[in-house]
Amino acid sequence: MNEIQIFCPATIANVSCGFDVLGLCLESVGDEMTITKTDRMGVRITDIIGANLPLEAEKNVAGVAALSLLHHLLPNCGFDIKITKNIKAGSGIGSSAASAAGAVYGINKLLGSPLTDKELIYFAMQGEALASGSPHADNVSPALLGGFTLVRSYDPLDVIAITAPPELYVTVIHPQIELKTKDARSVLKENISLKKATIQCGNLGGLISGLYTQNYDLIGRCLHDELVEPVRSILIPKFAELKEAAKQAGALGGGISGSGPSVFALSRGETTARKAAEAFAAIMQQTSVPFEAHVSAINPTGIKIM
Amino acid sequence: MNEIQIFCPATIANVSCGFDVLGLCLESVGDEMTITKTDRMGVRITDIIGANLPLEAEKNVAGVAALSLLHHLLPNCGFDIKITKNIKAGSGIGSSAASAAGAVYGINKLLGSPLTDKELIYFAMQGEALASGSPHADNVSPALLGGFTLVRSYDPLDVIAITAPPELYVTVIHPQIELKTKDARSVLKENISLKKATIQCGNLGGLISGLYTQNYDLIGRCLHDELVEPVRSILIPKFAELKEAAKQAGALGGGISGSGPSVFALSRGETTARKAAEAFAAIMQQTSVPFEAHVSAINPTGIKIM
Repeated sequence: MNEIQIFCPATIANVSCGFDVLGLCLESVGDEMTITKTDRMGVRITDIIGANLPLEAEKNVAGVAALSLLHHLLPNCGFDIKITKNIKAGSGIGSSAASAAGAVYGINKLLGSPLTDKELIYFAMQGEALASGSPHADNVSPALLGGFTLVRSYDPLDVIAITAPPELYVTVIHPQIELKTKDARSVLKENISLKKATIQCGNLGGLISGLYTQNYDLIGRCLHDELVEPVRSILIPKFAELKEAAKQAGALGGGISGSGPSVFALSRGETTARKAAEAFAAIMQQTSVPFEAHVSAINPTGIKIM
Repeated sequence: MNEIQIFCPATIANVSCGFDVLGLCLESVGDEMTITKTDRMGVRITDIIGANLPLEAEKNVAGVAALSLLHHLLPNCGFDIKITKNIKAGSGIGSSAASAAGAVYGINKLLGSPLTDKELIYFAMQGEALASGSPHADNVSPALLGGFTLVRSYDPLDVIAITAPPELYVTVIHPQIELKTKDARSVLKENISLKKATIQCGNLGGLISGLYTQNYDLIGRCLHDELVEPVRSILIPKFAELKEAAKQAGALGGGISGSGPSVFALSRGETTARKAAEAFAAIMQQTSVPFEAHVSAINPTGIKIM
């Protein structure tokens, strides 16, 4: 096999109470990549369709992730990468992670899978470092492993894959404003009260429990972010109204996707998830902000060969 | 049924990364209570064997918990309570919780179980309020429900029961120094960094995951308390040595039991748990502090009728 075509899914990091540790993988939103093994050493980004991003490998998240993997594996060949971007950059649903994870996944497959998907996380993170300034794993992990992922630790890197309950659906609304990850980081408070941290732990623990027991009500009760949402949500137009409208439509709950500006809701069943999308849209139509809505199952496996 | 004899187990609150939210129930350490339905309204503590505690119901944790339940149920009878204390007061393994939970459990049973065990948590908490100044649920919940419990929220009260992996054993060492819950609280920092809170969330989420998937290695990796142990452990003689010795003996990890002074370790299998007890004892023997060690399976059901 000298060429591989893959679907690189969008992902939601943080997932409300799971700030900086939890992520989930979408099924029906994602980029496409074609990766070709060549005799020419190194990595070449040959084409990017649908986005204005640098083709120079060292300045491209897919290129940087690919190069870090090649630096480790030292194969006697190179790779051409063609990317069709469907995930908008800066949307908060893991656009850079899809490219970074896709690049390392595809190259690893073309080399006969010397590394496991879990081992690829580290290399995909190097692409994320280029995009956001820090090599975080909360989007590349669900992109590579599917379902929900918990980044337990960075030192050493320890990521746990958690199967999503089968009826859990995601609704995402992307208000098309510019909100840089770095700016969304800068509003965070460096210190928080021990009391709030304890509440966050209670909700995160409950959410993990709800995922394993497929207890949708419990999942809904736990979708409460005590630490980050209160300060970060002020950067997102109509955030409180969006969240409330989704709940009124029957969603279990929701929050900010990644560092925003996208907002997500989780629902039991596709029908409710579609109603939440309509509710999201109705709120956004009260503004002049253009938007895009997605409804998706949770992707159980992550990146797929097309 | 006019009389009931029950075993009221010791419990471990906090469980390392689970500060103020997690608890677990011991199998082989606990008090005994005999509760008798009488024609005389109200609650009478008729005898306490093994401890010097107040017999006046309003000043006794079992009495206060019982009275709060009677205030709710308004039965046309009263109850006599006899307690045999085996759990030392102030040991940090839920001595007051065993009494408070036992009282409400026994009375509820004698009244034909109008409330579920989960509903009893609220009333048992009122006894805890007398003991420690705050109506916390992290010991009474595992005492009533067994296994591990997660106190997700106090407002509203939301407690999740989690089955313990079958091979998980607990070792407890009780250095017999006086360490009041209030003092152990006073050393805590009111504010912590968001970064530390995130690490704690990662470990708590991982621990919950490990419990559901019976992944003992993961459980061990997650037994790391970023928030409380660093400051509270200075109040416990030889804490670092105890923890390290248990790990060297093969334990998965450990931490402070409740607010101390007891220290616990979790192990896979009883043999390792017994080795951890020997390792604990060897460290304590280097000091002049008297101590008591326990090895126990995790109690799957909580309080038991004898």
